[in-house]
Amino acid sequence: MTQVFDRIAIIGVGLIGASIARAAREFAAAGAVSLYDASDAARTRLRELAIGDVFDDPQAAVADADLVVLAVPVGAMNGAIAAVAPALKPGAIVTDVGSVKAAVIDAVRASVPPHAFFVPGHPLAGTEHSGPDAGFATLFKGRWHVLTPLDDPRPDYAEAVAKVGAFWLEIGANVEQMDAARHDVVLAVVSHLPHLIAFNIVAMAEDLESVTESEVVKYSASGFRDFTRIAASDPTMWRDVFLNNREAVLEVLGRFSEDLAALQRAIRWGEGDTLYDLFDRARRMRREVIEAGQDTAAPNWGREN
Amino acid sequence: MTQVFDRIAIIGVGLIGASIARAAREFAAAGAVSLYDASDAARTRLRELAIGDVFDDPQAAVADADLVVLAVPVGAMNGAIAAVAPALKPGAIVTDVGSVKAAVIDAVRASVPPHAFFVPGHPLAGTEHSGPDAGFATLFKGRWHVLTPLDDPRPDYAEAVAKVGAFWLEIGANVEQMDAARHDVVLAVVSHLPHLIAFNIVAMAEDLESVTESEVVKYSASGFRDFTRIAASDPTMWRDVFLNNREAVLEVLGRFSEDLAALQRAIRWGEGDTLYDLFDRARRMRREVIEAGQDTAAPNWGREN
Repeated sequence: MTQVFDRIAIIGVGLIGASIARAAREFAAAGAVSLYDASDAARTRLRELAIGDVFDDPQAAVADADLVVLAVPVGAMNGAIAAVAPALKPGAIVTDVGSVKAAVIDAVRASVPPHAFFVPGHPLAGTEHSGPDAGFATLFKGRWHVLTPLDDPRPDYAEAVAKVGAFWLEIGANVEQMDAARHDVVLAVVSHLPHLIAFNIVAMAEDLESVTESEVVKYSASGFRDFTRIAASDPTMWRDVFLNNREAVLEVLGRFSEDLAALQRAIRWGEGDTLYDLFDRARRMRREVIEAGQDTAAPNWGREN
Repeated sequence: MTQVFDRIAIIGVGLIGASIARAAREFAAAGAVSLYDASDAARTRLRELAIGDVFDDPQAAVADADLVVLAVPVGAMNGAIAAVAPALKPGAIVTDVGSVKAAVIDAVRASVPPHAFFVPGHPLAGTEHSGPDAGFATLFKGRWHVLTPLDDPRPDYAEAVAKVGAFWLEIGANVEQMDAARHDVVLAVVSHLPHLIAFNIVAMAEDLESVTESEVVKYSASGFRDFTRIAASDPTMWRDVFLNNREAVLEVLGRFSEDLAALQRAIRWGEGDTLYDLFDRARRMRREVIEAGQDTAAPNWGREN
């Protein structure tokens, strides 16, 4: 355990922010943790949780920080950096945890003062729960943290990137670097589209004419319940993701709909071989995910049944 | 623990058949269990597993059975009943575990001899694993078993339905009766459509031009991995489900696509309120599923992270 920063400040303390705070202390990756959240209720709760020093003013929170983590929804990043920028100390590093990178870079970069560094990042970790109480220290353990460094010519910038990477390694993540645009396309496939589809099917099932909501809930264990978990994620966070990664999401959504139409046609015309081949291919992908250590092989994820 | 049947025979011993065999013994719901599977390899493996008396001939397997469970894919039900019908003893009850009910009733009913009873059924339980080794005794614990009784005028038929229900109760399930057509519509929503969507997105991700398969696997924990689990289910079983519940599946698939198109439009035009409202509604459904005891409230289903 290596202390990478003397003090970090977390701006926006929900599931991710609170997990970083807990992890930084548990793994001693930071000497001290400052916390600020725009919500009065969240700050009150954070004082009870005692997972860091809570400030009522964002500038006071960052004044002494070596690393400032913007952990607000993507659409609030611009406001968050504006609120703290005047108080950033010389050499301070700003990072973020937004699920979209190009739009966050656009929203944040220009507001970071010349005496500070901005190292954008995204931890591929989370649960369906939200808020400060949902955070836990091992959330990032074994998960990827993707850094999408800027094209910043200053000699010290590479060191800033290395320090942010070192911090995430200390709190359990695997660290990877990627181009921001590439990140946004990959995440559109592996995360944004799956969430969009889950939201869509769950909202649809709520107001069908043919089947009642109570029937859907009662028999949900036959497949539907898995989608409800994904669709339980924070609606503000996800609204901002779709508004800010529009092009990549629309692109893969178009492909999804095209393939679904072909599947629909195969069902209509009773093309059993087409269905079998596609289902068999899909099954192979599961084995690769498990071999890559990205999920458990336990049936039903080890749920009782 | 009450012994409901002296001997049961299971025709087709995969995940579901092997789970019934194990449960019948563990909960002493049957005095003895006969097993038959059309696959030589499965029969060999079943002899090693020693979870029942294995027969090489389907008629020999059912000759002494009070309950015969057809646990083959929906498309194989017709062949399965034809293979055992001549050997059914007077008063024998035939049931099945097919995920589609109207089509299975059409395929099986006419072949059941007049001295036997047919009580169609469907346990809403399973895992993503297949084959005899995947079976376990508690698979049905707390899950629904839906019976869709025939309109059979014989005075003893109601008793046959009650005995099948009693058997499933003994092995841990909750038993419910439903009209076959209604079952097929409800299951199209809660099970068939979710599986179809999961198969589609996983197969799609395998051959995208913009993102490599290894990237999808590597970053799958951000949402995609959940879909791979669902899409790992047995391809033969699912092919048969879609071929045999075509109308109901096409109906809800049409609705899904319509709603997805509206969501796509909201993203394209930046309609944040529309997105937020829909995501927020979807989240509420999750709470209802958990309150109904249909899933765990543990974050990420209690997966490590």
